[in-house]
Amino acid sequence: MTRMITIALDAMGGDIGPSVTVPAAVETVARHDDLALILVGDEQTLRAELAQAGATEGERVRILHTTQTVGMDEPPAQALRGKKDSSMRVAINLVKDGGAQACVSAGNTGALMATAKYVLKTLPGIDRPAICTTIPAVKGHTYVLDLGANVDCSAEQLYQFAVMGSVLVGAVDNRPRPRVGLLNIGQEDIKGNDQVRGAAQLIEASDLNYIGFVEGTDIFLGDVDVVVCDGFAGNVALKTMEGASKTIAHFLREEFHRSWLTRLSGLFAMPVLNALKRRIDPRKYNGASFLGLGGIVVKSHGSSDAVALQTAIEVARLEVEKAVPARIDSQLEALLARRATA
Amino acid sequence: MTRMITIALDAMGGDIGPSVTVPAAVETVARHDDLALILVGDEQTLRAELAQAGATEGERVRILHTTQTVGMDEPPAQALRGKKDSSMRVAINLVKDGGAQACVSAGNTGALMATAKYVLKTLPGIDRPAICTTIPAVKGHTYVLDLGANVDCSAEQLYQFAVMGSVLVGAVDNRPRPRVGLLNIGQEDIKGNDQVRGAAQLIEASDLNYIGFVEGTDIFLGDVDVVVCDGFAGNVALKTMEGASKTIAHFLREEFHRSWLTRLSGLFAMPVLNALKRRIDPRKYNGASFLGLGGIVVKSHGSSDAVALQTAIEVARLEVEKAVPARIDSQLEALLARRATA
Repeated sequence: MTRMITIALDAMGGDIGPSVTVPAAVETVARHDDLALILVGDEQTLRAELAQAGATEGERVRILHTTQTVGMDEPPAQALRGKKDSSMRVAINLVKDGGAQACVSAGNTGALMATAKYVLKTLPGIDRPAICTTIPAVKGHTYVLDLGANVDCSAEQLYQFAVMGSVLVGAVDNRPRPRVGLLNIGQEDIKGNDQVRGAAQLIEASDLNYIGFVEGTDIFLGDVDVVVCDGFAGNVALKTMEGASKTIAHFLREEFHRSWLTRLSGLFAMPVLNALKRRIDPRKYNGASFLGLGGIVVKSHGSSDAVALQTAIEVARLEVEKAVPARIDSQLEALLARRATA
Repeated sequence: MTRMITIALDAMGGDIGPSVTVPAAVETVARHDDLALILVGDEQTLRAELAQAGATEGERVRILHTTQTVGMDEPPAQALRGKKDSSMRVAINLVKDGGAQACVSAGNTGALMATAKYVLKTLPGIDRPAICTTIPAVKGHTYVLDLGANVDCSAEQLYQFAVMGSVLVGAVDNRPRPRVGLLNIGQEDIKGNDQVRGAAQLIEASDLNYIGFVEGTDIFLGDVDVVVCDGFAGNVALKTMEGASKTIAHFLREEFHRSWLTRLSGLFAMPVLNALKRRIDPRKYNGASFLGLGGIVVKSHGSSDAVALQTAIEVARLEVEKAVPARIDSQLEALLARRATA
């Protein structure tokens, strides 16, 4: 008998909420025999959505009733102090108490991070958790962290991100020695700020597979597996990528709509355009991992639809299967040992 | 009689050098009756290239002989100290001495910035110059600065960038009150680091048309004219944009090459694809302005071809016509006055 994986889903989270989270849960459970989901949120609403999706509560889709919801713009501190029965908080509590092995939420990122840190604590050796996601590359995909949890990062923190990213990719993509690069504004040793140069020394001295400084363009080439940066740079990179892609798609649409002839050629090119769309579909890259916590928390994009949310649940499922936090924890022991002797 | 604009061109600069710079010079001069270019570099090589381009030395295309060239990877300090007769240095000297009103170079960015700062000095009130360029947006284009000259920036420096960017756009795009945004990782006041939050206060208190925090996605929307950030974030944004565009172009090519049917549809869609290519052609956005110096210096991309370099010369020409440094200088008086009373 395969071991069951149980994931707690913040069923009230996200811009849309239960009408997205419930169908996504039902769909994902149908795809995996070893998966159970706990829908955390308002019982009545969730039950209605389950009926809507043609499903009923059962062994593998359970409802856990909560009375509160964290608003998408609510200050994290307020959510943490005032919303102890929120769907988000209770979903994370389940991970802490062993009722679930991971939590997925499309809710308020700041509140999710603050609550996860408070409830699950950071692993020994980690100053602050990081947010990590994949980005499509010409060959395969690239993991980037941090994406916004840590605005100012010390060299030591960047080094911790490198360790965590490396472990994640090694586990989830079955890559024995993931190539780690440090995001910088040039590849020469003298480039960048003190933190980046300091991190380069730390990572170089470690047993990580460090390939040196990389630039924004390198994120997309597939020659690096893990790109490490502070949360400011990572967030700027992620959102610039989103903006650039949308702009090109917009221009392409405009050019195909110029005349009846271009419209016709657009019709003819539709299969290709759809293939491109599928290939860079952000829903396929949804699900950002909070790394460095004593449990698995995956953040789904706030505007996720059911397809995107399913991807995020899959990310969490894989991290449970590969025991990512335990692997990070054991990898960190070397780091802690070195610190103790330093 | 129109006043003549004279621009000094570092004719040896760039990955390719004279075989690009000379034809670009000849072309640009042919387009503007009021433009003269001084080709700075090895006389013999440049004369041969002029002949190749079917042109001869004359009033409007002159050659100024120099004996040295700055290498693309040469450390800036070494170029500054050891290459006093380089094409780059002499071109900048011309701006200082009044022999030219602007300098354009596709050479080593670090050396160009160091030399320009040393020779032309920064304007009173400016701590360090910034690099600024335009990026295509859904509506029009957006100016972003700094793009890599300043890795760590204080709130005060970011404020100076806002002033300079605003003046540039006001002058060059004839926009009376350019909308200025500060690049951040969220739009809420609490987001970002101390420098960004501090800069927000300074800009808000100024008479700039400040619209608040913007994110990476906003660079492309056309709802902000000037995006202000430190050189690390700006460089990451610029290179991520380049990488994302190239990746999408690569995917599109791959999808059109899948089968004879998709190839055929690609042939049929060629006019549209070419129109898109023209629209996001990086050569159209070439020419980064060094702002905050006592003279006009425009950096052309190292890999510029003749078309790209022409764009950079046009940028310099427009800045001369609009007297950008003088405008920045007068705008800075208010800033200096405030500092004096503080």
